[in-house]
Parts: sequence; structure tokens; C-alpha cells
Amino acid sequence: MHLVFIGAHPDDETSSSGTIAKYTANGHEATIVMTTRGGRGHWEIPSEELERIRTKEMESAAKILGAEVIFLDYKDADVPAGDALKEELVDVVRNLKPDIVLTFHPMVWRDDHKRVGQAATEACFKACLPLLETRYLAHRPVPDIYFFGSPMVPVEKDVYIDVSEYMDVKMESFAQHRSQWVKWDIDEDDSTRPLEEIRARMLHRARQYGLESGVEYAEAFMSQYGRKRALDFFPTVR
Amino acid sequence: MHLVFIGAHPDDETSSSGTIAKYTANGHEATIVMTTRGGRGHWEIPSEELERIRTKEMESAAKILGAEVIFLDYKDADVPAGDALKEELVDVVRNLKPDIVLTFHPMVWRDDHKRVGQAATEACFKACLPLLETRYLAHRPVPDIYFFGSPMVPVEKDVYIDVSEYMDVKMESFAQHRSQWVKWDIDEDDSTRPLEEIRARMLHRARQYGLESGVEYAEAFMSQYGRKRALDFFPTVR
Amino acid sequence: MHLVFIGAHPDDETSSSGTIAKYTANGHEATIVMTTRGGRGHWEIPSEELERIRTKEMESAAKILGAEVIFLDYKDADVPAGDALKEELVDVVRNLKPDIVLTFHPMVWRDDHKRVGQAATEACFKACLPLLETRYLAHRPVPDIYFFGSPMVPVEKDVYIDVSEYMDVKMESFAQHRSQWVKWDIDEDDSTRPLEEIRARMLHRARQYGLESGVEYAEAFMSQYGRKRALDFFPTVR
Amino acid sequence: MHLVFIGAHPDDETSSSGTIAKYTANGHEATIVMTTRGGRGHWEIPSEELERIRTKEMESAAKILGAEVIFLDYKDADVPAGDALKEELVDVVRNLKPDIVLTFHPMVWRDDHKRVGQAATEACFKACLPLLETRYLAHRPVPDIYFFGSPMVPVEKDVYIDVSEYMDVKMESFAQHRSQWVKWDIDEDDSTRPLEEIRARMLHRARQYGLESGVEYAEAFMSQYGRKRALDFFPTVR
Amino acid sequence: MHLVFIGAHPDDETSSSGTIAKYTANGHEATIVMTTRGGRGHWEIPSEELERIRTKEMESAAKILGAEVIFLDYKDADVPAGDALKEELVDVVRNLKPDIVLTFHPMVWRDDHKRVGQAATEACFKACLPLLETRYLAHRPVPDIYFFGSPMVPVEKDVYIDVSEYMDVKMESFAQHRSQWVKWDIDEDDSTRPLEEIRARMLHRARQYGLESGVEYAEAFMSQYGRKRALDFFPTVR
Amino acid sequence: MHLVFIGAHPDDETSSSGTIAKYTANGHEATIVMTTRGGRGHWEIPSEELERIRTKEMESAAKILGAEVIFLDYKDADVPAGDALKEELVDVVRNLKPDIVLTFHPMVWRDDHKRVGQAATEACFKACLPLLETRYLAHRPVPDIYFFGSPMVPVEKDVYIDVSEYMDVKMESFAQHRSQWVKWDIDEDDSTRPLEEIRARMLHRARQYGLESGVEYAEAFMSQYGRKRALDFFPTVR
Repeated sequence: MHLVFIGAHPDDETSSSGTIAKYTANGHEATIVMTTRGGRGHWEIPSEELERIRTKEMESAAKILGAEVIFLDYKDADVPAGDALKEELVDVVRNLKPDIVLTFHPMVWRDDHKRVGQAATEACFKACLPLLETRYLAHRPVPDIYFFGSPMVPVEKDVYIDVSEYMDVKMESFAQHRSQWVKWDIDEDDSTRPLEEIRARMLHRARQYGLESGVEYAEAFMSQYGRKRALDFFPTVR
Repeated sequence: MHLVFIGAHPDDETSSSGTIAKYTANGHEATIVMTTRGGRGHWEIPSEELERIRTKEMESAAKILGAEVIFLDYKDADVPAGDALKEELVDVVRNLKPDIVLTFHPMVWRDDHKRVGQAATEACFKACLPLLETRYLAHRPVPDIYFFGSPMVPVEKDVYIDVSEYMDVKMESFAQHRSQWVKWDIDEDDSTRPLEEIRARMLHRARQYGLESGVEYAEAFMSQYGRKRALDFFPTVR
Repeated sequence: MHLVFIGAHPDDETSSSGTIAKYTANGHEATIVMTTRGGRGHWEIPSEELERIRTKEMESAAKILGAEVIFLDYKDADVPAGDALKEELVDVVRNLKPDIVLTFHPMVWRDDHKRVGQAATEACFKACLPLLETRYLAHRPVPDIYFFGSPMVPVEKDVYIDVSEYMDVKMESFAQHRSQWVKWDIDEDDSTRPLEEIRARMLHRARQYGLESGVEYAEAFMSQYGRKRALDFFPTVR
Repeated sequence: MHLVFIGAHPDDETSSSGTIAKYTANGHEATIVMTTRGGRGHWEIPSEELERIRTKEMESAAKILGAEVIFLDYKDADVPAGDALKEELVDVVRNLKPDIVLTFHPMVWRDDHKRVGQAATEACFKACLPLLETRYLAHRPVPDIYFFGSPMVPVEKDVYIDVSEYMDVKMESFAQHRSQWVKWDIDEDDSTRPLEEIRARMLHRARQYGLESGVEYAEAFMSQYGRKRALDFFPTVR
Repeated sequence: MHLVFIGAHPDDETSSSGTIAKYTANGHEATIVMTTRGGRGHWEIPSEELERIRTKEMESAAKILGAEVIFLDYKDADVPAGDALKEELVDVVRNLKPDIVLTFHPMVWRDDHKRVGQAATEACFKACLPLLETRYLAHRPVPDIYFFGSPMVPVEKDVYIDVSEYMDVKMESFAQHRSQWVKWDIDEDDSTRPLEEIRARMLHRARQYGLESGVEYAEAFMSQYGRKRALDFFPTVR
Repeated sequence: MHLVFIGAHPDDETSSSGTIAKYTANGHEATIVMTTRGGRGHWEIPSEELERIRTKEMESAAKILGAEVIFLDYKDADVPAGDALKEELVDVVRNLKPDIVLTFHPMVWRDDHKRVGQAATEACFKACLPLLETRYLAHRPVPDIYFFGSPMVPVEKDVYIDVSEYMDVKMESFAQHRSQWVKWDIDEDDSTRPLEEIRARMLHRARQYGLESGVEYAEAFMSQYGRKRALDFFPTVR
């Protein structure tokens, strides 16, 4: 099984890092595709230097998760409209042959995120068309796609993954993104925010998803089509 | 594992009969609790005779499902308001010790159905209180409750059980309710409706739930609290 | 066609009075069933006298609408829990033989309103059971039920009736409820509110429903089951 | 301003205790009305003794919140159907003259809770009717009612109260309910759960509501009618 | 009356073919506008040959429905972003002068479908602007638009058209798309799927919409703005 | 405090004009940014002349509201796809330094409106990035954004501003858009519609929002993220 995460900026994978770690710990393959190197995610470090720094941070974080990393080299805050990204992702999908794709919901607020989510979703479909000729052969079937992020219109999370045993690796992996500790939330004030505060918020969210789904800690996703799956028996643990 | 179905009229169990059959076929215990004998569900047969007939039909249907039957002897179209039914169901629950209870959603339209759903739901909770003394000892934990029926306000089905292999037994079991073939839908015209037509509608509905959940045929339920369950991995079959 | 309105207090029919007037103006029969005489809907007039006054007001209002009136003589703010009202309404339905019933949605906030809505809805169903013996014979089929009022949980209005030509009669009919002009909205302050202010609000609401449904003035209802009706062609007026 | 909390079992007020403490700390009056003494909320202590214990606990907790307590002496797990509780609450409302009432949403799952919420809501309305004669005079206007609890059908929380400065008193107040520490969640296993675990969950929930509403810690309620309030300016803190 | 269907790939019209057939059978005009010839909808037939084949299939299918066909010659899986398609559709609308337009909901998942739905919706509006000069004069009023397809966020079907008498022509019309029988659902396995299986699913869906709307077979659409239409009387058939 | 309105066509600001007037009347600064001069919003006046006329009308309207106006000179019915408008708005935001931005919801139906709403929303975010170098320095924090308009998928209005005292200025301001009186609603028939009719509809809508939020007249908006704000006390006026 190959799990492919498609995001926009290094550290976007934090939404799903417990799940990624769980897959690799269970013998599956995981690849993180980042469409930019996050060259505008700081207040002072110049973009080029920042890209170098964040590339390294992303590689360290991925290593801890047991995942490969691929960068597509679009520019942060400049993921383009149009079909170029989608065309490129068709070949990424054909090459990586994912069973599962994790990406932004195509209706989230920020353009970088929305465009990555839209392009990734459509690329998964187009990658399966034999008559669409590119460098690689068609990949079938279309992977199952699970979305993270908060859409402009409320969409319910409908798949929760138990990551109780992967919270340490999730935390350690995030800690590699050192350039992002100080100014985590750019909408707020300028004072530095220590790693502990970020960790507390990450713990809170994973615990909240855990409370909603009956485990200690969880990550939550939206399935494409909100598709229900029939069970063999009622989900009871007794 | 003990699955207990709590309904109002013989043939109410048809909503869940594939699931009941699946549980018993897999070595679990199942009991059908009917709060009335359906003495008003006909146009001509007098109530007392009808109760005798439908009791027999219910017993035949349950036998095919591999389930026991218990009747509580309330009157059809007269399940009472108040707490009497609830008190009686507390002892039913304490006696049967269910792991799973299937019953009407407490907000469905018809009083008989609504009152059975409300009483059954509350009885499951009250049955677990040690300081509530009745003929039987407290039963803990509170069983998982799954609802069927169409509430007055839309509530989404969130648990689908694959019954593809139990459609024959579902059909055969329903066929025992011979008194209900001719005038299945009392709101419509008087002409007789052959069993085939009812079967077609049952097949359609199970197929619809199957299409919604990725299998051939399914039955669909609402969980109390709409509770999500965390998974270990994404639900993919590859 | 017989349209039966079942309400709790004289002037409840105002929610539907344009529709009632339209039906009678088109040759249909209409009956207004009031379960109380509104004996507590004032600040000073003693209950018994108030009941006499409001009975007269209701009769005048109904006359203008071309409808009959029946009172059931429960007490205002004391419509009882339990099944007595429902049993009485079964015979009302069997006697009046309605094709359409208008009543409160069974989940509105106030007990008088909720209990009338619940009892009326269930009575329509029970009235059709031949084996339920009462003074009258069973009435079939179950009438179509349309609800007014604001449920505790939002339920969308899904049927709009064009009453543009019946706004005058709607206004004149309401004006008969003279005891209700002064203290229309009991939750607000004590100052008298002239009829003009109430009329303005009634006009506003009918206009709002009109804007929502493409006509000048409308009344809006919720159908039981939120049932859709297939059309022969798309609803276009060209 | 008089804030009246109407609950079913001692410790129900914990849902709102930060808010209660905030009101009393700001010079307002607060009264906690408990319809039972919680005589069935334990596994071993006999009911009568338990009622004495929990009465004391409730009084200590209320004292810390700066609130008065009134008990109505219904039996735990036996709050009755029908109108008796409602009639009693009419006089409670007329006597206490609340500006604001906090109670269970009338559509929550457990009968004790649901019946208290339904009766309290209706009592607030009936208390304002001058022609309804009881021991006390009518109280007007109808208080604003805010609900807590989780209804059977999802209803969004729409009013958040910032209790960041009242978390200590909220915790200390809850700690008085010593009989409830050990077996807090009766649906789960028998092992004792230390106060710390309960506190962690309370903190988590208040923090979650805080995150949803932009403060450190909050309590969340549903307003009757989901009523919006117009503002003078956009809610911005700059 | 002129009904114009605007789709992306030959056989997209199947969603609405019963409705199209009904309109033409009742003396109305119908035109099917296909923005591509479906040149990538197969596993082996080369695109150019496939386009020729599917053009013929589409023409046969349209003939059976009594409708004209127009192709716009965009490429399958390559309907472009930007405004070119919209500009072209403005002239299609101005030329065809539709009263009713059927097209994809602008928020469906696949780019080809979404872009056609977005462009068609906006083109209907722009076509009515006199100051927007193109080859044709402005067409007014803006046609009524009804959508098919499954949006990324649930949108309720709100218009059902009874096609009970047009199921045969719907089936026969679909059967013309011979190139699409074998690999109808490209997300699934490679085995051939006989026409019978596709027909069974089409019948199931039309029957499901029929059950939802009270007729034998129906097609279902979403109106723009979810617009309600006031009725003269309640929709009852008695 | 600086309130910036970003719209597509002169008179779009009418949705928010009472709010704008209220802010300026209270000593705040307000700027109206119009991305086009509305050169296609008429049936006969040629575009260039129309642009000159509507520019003047907009300036008069803004003067009455106490607001500045800026035009961006895109063409009516031709606001482009792609990122050009967004890039331009980044500098508008950096230059104007708004605290609050009012714009179209990014999911409304018409392309001009949708593209303005999308670009304005994203521009507010991008304007705060220091590493994104443009003519102006970064503006932080990201302004609070409130949306008007009707999205393709229902989104609830969640912020109401009381404009009861600004209805006269709202009306007078709208009256300046003389070119828009005659053919206000282009989807309807050709007859002229006097200003009075438009005023009646504006009054109706403001009154409707007022009724929904407990004041005489209100304007209603959607906050980004549907964000709740914790209150200090329950919103009661007593």
C-alpha cells in the first residue's frame, strides 16, 4: 500500500503526520509531495535562504515519519491558477501509483491550499485515462482520496484515524520545522510563541478528535463523496 | 453477543431482519421483543383473531431468522404515554442482557413507534442503575443502541450493515407475515398487492442502501449520538 | 375537497387564513377546529368572560373566511398530556372526513401548540384503522397534513400557497379578534399596539414568503415527511 | 439581574458553573434549582443516604459559586411525565423572577434531563400569564432561556460565555461533588477515575469552546429560537 | 418552449434523457450541446477514431430523443479553465434562445463537468446583456437553469420530473452509446459489464427518484437558488 | 478604524450602505473599492458614456455615506479569471490598511461577483506576507472579513448590524444611482420600475433582517470561518 500526501507548504503534513507514521510503521510506503518550499513563511529570512532551510526541515520531518519527500518547486503564495499544476500531478500520480491520497479539500479558503487540493483531486482522476498520453502509463484504479483542512462551507469530518500511539513521533516530526515555531499563527501578535504552546494546541486538537471517535488521540479527514462503507457487524468492542 | 430488537408490531423487524439473520448465522444470540401483537393491522379480521394469527406469523418469521420472540401485550395503536412501558422494558433489558439494541428512533412519526423507541432507549440507560431496584439486577454497560425508522426531522443513516448474503432469508422471513401481504400500505388504495410488489420494494431499498455503502445489499441505521468510531487505517479493500 | 384546520387558540388560524379563504372561495369546504377558547389570552378580562368573547370573535373570523368552527373545550394553557385529545380528534377526523389537515408542527415550542400538533397528526393516522372502533367509521385515506409554526429544530418550509388575492380577507378576518389587538405579543412591553402595527407585521411576513416563492403574497407550510412531488414539466411560466 | 439554573441532578450545574460564578462575581443573583437530589447516582451508597450526601455536596458547590440552591424533591431517574413538574416550576419562576434561565435543551436524550428542560421552558412561558392563578403573581417578561446538553438532533451552540477567569472556581466547585468522582461516567468500566482525569476532560471541553470562540476558556449554550442579535458594530477588538 | 441541455461528454445527457424525450414528445424543441466528443472515454480505441464513433452514437441517441445536437469541439479531459468556453456559450445561448437550460451543477467534482456547469450558468446571464456585443443579439430573459450531478457539498434535489412513460426511450437512447457499455464505470475493475447491468442501475436510480416523489420513475434536478414556487393549492391528487 | 468595501459594480455597496454610513457617522474611515465602473449595466446607454455616468453616481452615493471611492477599471461582465485582480488588491489592502473588509462571499453565482470576493479574500491574506514584495509594505494583521451576497450553497448570515438610524441615508445614497432605477432587475419584464418599488424591496429586506435580529432595520453578513465570539454575559437588554 502506498500513501501519498500532497500539500502546499512544508509542515502542512502535520495535519496527517500521525497517520503517515502509522502507515510506515505498519510496513506501508508513504510519500510527501510538497508543491512549494514555503519561501514566504517567515518575517525576516530572505525567500531563497528560507527555501533552503525549510527543504531541510521537511526532509528531517519526513525521515522521522518514515516517508519520502518530493518538491514540485512552485512558489509559496503563488501556486498558479490554471492547469499546469494538475498536469504535473498527473505524472506524479502515475509515477507514485498511490492507493490512498491525502490532500487539502478543494474548497478551503487559501488559494495555495485550494489549488493544490483541486489539482490533486482532478489529477487522480486524469491519471487513470489511458488515452491521455504523458511520460507515464495510466495508473488505475483512481486512488481513494481523503481530505483535510476547513472548507468555506462546513463539511463534516467522516473518517477518524486512531493515532494514539503516534503522538510522540507526530510531535517530534513537527519540531523539525524550526523556522515555523516562532511565528506559527501569522494572524496574531508578534511575540514569539514557544514550541510548548504549539504542542499544546496540537495535543488539544488530536484529543478532541479522539473524544469524538472514542480513542485517546485521532486525526480526522473528509472522504470524497462522503462515502459510507457497509460493515459486517455493528462497531462494538465487547 | 446478544442482539435485541425492540419493535411495536409484528413485521417491524423486517427493517433489520437481514442483520438479525447475519448475527444468528454467525453464532450470536438474537431476541425480538414485540410490544404489541398487531391486533389492528387489518381491515376485516377481528382484533383477537388477528392477534393470534400475527403471533404465529411472528414466531415463524423469527424462527427463520434464528431469533427468539417475546411479546409484551400492549394493544396495537394504543401503546400508552407515560412510564409503564419503560419500566417493563427495564426488566426486559436486565433479563436479556443485550450487547446491542435495535429500536425505532425516538423521534419517528407514529405514536406506537415513537413511544417504543423512547421507552427502549431510556430503559437501556435505567437498566444499568444499581440503586434502581426491580426484579432483576442492574445490567451494565448500557448496550449500544442503533435506530431504524424515519424521524420527524431528517437524521442521517450512519451505520450500514452488509446483508448481501441474507436477502433470501430476509425475504422468506417477511413472507411469513401473510396477513400483511394484501394491505401492506394502509394509506393507499384497497386493491390487493401481491407479495411480489412488496418484495420488489424491499429489494429496491436494500439495493439503495447497498449503493450508498459500496455493497450489493445493505440495511441502514442511525447510531445514538451519531457517534464516530476511529479506525486503524483508511477503509480501503485493496 | 374538505380542508380542516386544527389549532389551539382562536387566532391561530391567522397563519393559514389566506389559504382557507382561497379554498372556500374556490368552492371547497373548510372547518376550523379550536381545542380551546383561549381563556387565558388577556391581562384583565376574566377567563370565563374572555372565552365567551373569543368564541364570538372566532366565529366572526371564520365567517369571513367562509369556514365552519368547532370548539373542543380544553382549557387555554392546559391542553393535557396523554391521549385524551388524540382520541377526541380521531372522531373529529372520522366525522369531518378531511382531505387536507393544517395543524401545528409536532415539535413547536409551546405545550398547547405541540400537543395539538402531535394529537392531530396521530389522530389522522388512527382515524383510518377499521379495527379501532369509535362512534364513527374509519376515514380513509389518511389526509395530507401540512404544518405551520416554528419547530424547536429548524425545519424548512416546503410548500408555499399564493394568497395574493386573499390578503384583504386575511386582514379583515384577523381584525375580528379584537381582544388580541392590544397585547398581541405577550413577551413584550405593556403599551398598546394598534392594529396597524400587527397588520404591518402580517403583511411583511406574507410578502417575505411571497418573495421566497415568486408571488406577491404567500403563506408557507411544512409537508409531513418533507415529501417531494414529481412534476410533469419544469415550473416555468413562459 | 437574577440568573436561575434549573437542572435534574446535583453536578448538572457544572455545565454552566463558570458562567454562574461570573454572574455572582459581578454582583448578580444566582439560584440553582435541582429537581432531584441524585439518589441513584452511585453504585453502593443507599439512596436515602446518597441524597443526604449529595444535598450537602450541592450546597458546598453552590456556596463556592455564590449561588442559592433549591431542591424540588423528585426522585432521581424518576422525574415524571405529565404536568406536575411544570406546574411546580411555574411557581418557582414566579417566586424567583429570573431574568435568565439556564436549563437542559428539551430534546436531550435522558428522560430526567429532557423532562426538566421541557417543563422549565414551558413554565417560563406559563408563569407570565396573569389569568393562570397560582400562589404567586405572574412574572413578566418571559426570561431569556439558554440551553445546555446534547439534543437528539444536532443543534448548534450559538452563545459562548468567556469563563477564562473562572476556571479555578469552576474546578473547586465541581470538586465538592465527592460522591461523583469515582464513577463519573457510568457507561464505562468499574475502575476508579481520579479527580485529575475528570478535571482534564473539563479543561479540554472549556478550552475547545474557547478555541471556537476566540478566548482561553468558554462555556457554550443554545439560545431558544436560535435568535440572532443585531450588533452596533462588527465584533473586532482592535 | 426550447429546452437546451449543455453537457461535457456524449452520454452525459442520460441524466436528463427522459425529461428531454418528454419535452419533445409534447411538441417542444430540444437541443443537446456537447462541449467535447468524448475522445478519451475508452481504453483502446484511439482518440480520433473514438471521437468519430461517439459523435455518431450521440447523434443516434439524440434522434431517439427527438433532439438536435451541437458539438463545441473541446477536448475530452481538457475543457479549459478561463473564459473561452463561456464566451462561446454566450453565443450558443443567444442563438438557441432557450427557455430552460439543463447543465452540470457548477460545484461537481470533475473539472470537465464543473467547467461546463460554471460556463453555462454564467453564459446564460451574460447572454442577456445588450451592451455585451457578440455575433448575436442579447437573449432575454435569462433562462431557468436546472442542474444535475453531485456537488462537492451536498445540495438537495428539489425538482423531480415524472418520466414514467419515457423509460423505454431513455433506455433505447442510452443503448446507442455502444462504446460506453463495456467500461461504464472506469473506477472499477476491467471486466466487461453487459448493458443489462447498466440498465439495472439506471432503472434503480429512476425508481429511487420516483419513490422520493410519488411516481413510478423520475429524474431529479437542483434549481438555481433553490427557488421555491408558490402553488395555487396544496399538491393533492384527489 | 478603517472599513473597506470591495465590490464589482457601482450600487453593489447598497448591500452594506447602512453599515458604512454608521461607521463614518461614528468617526471611522470608510473606502469603497469598485473593480468596474458598471459599463454594461444598461439597455441603451453606450458603455463608455455609461461608465462616466455611473462613476459620477457612485461618487455622489459615496459622498452621502461619508466614504471615499476607488475604481480599479476592470470591465463590467469581464472581471478576469486568474490572479491579476488579486495582485492589484494586495496593494490596495497594503495601501488602505483596513481593519474590516466587506466583500462578496467567494461562492456567489455571478462570475464578476465571485471573482471579486475570491480575490479580495485572498488579497487580505497575501497583503500580510513580508516576503511578498510589492509597491507597499506588508499590512498586518489580516483584516476581519465579512461577506454579503447569496452563495451557491446556503451559508447562514451570522452577523447583523443595526442600521435603524441609517435607513434614510441608505435610501438617499441608493437614489444617486439614477441609471439603475429603471431596469433594476434585468431578469424581469421591460416596463420601468419606479424608485418607490425598489425602495419598498430594500425596506422589506432590512426589516426582515431586523426582525431576525431584534431591531427595527438591519444589514446581515457572513463572517469568514463562521467564527463565534465569546461574550462576557448573555445578550439581554434588561
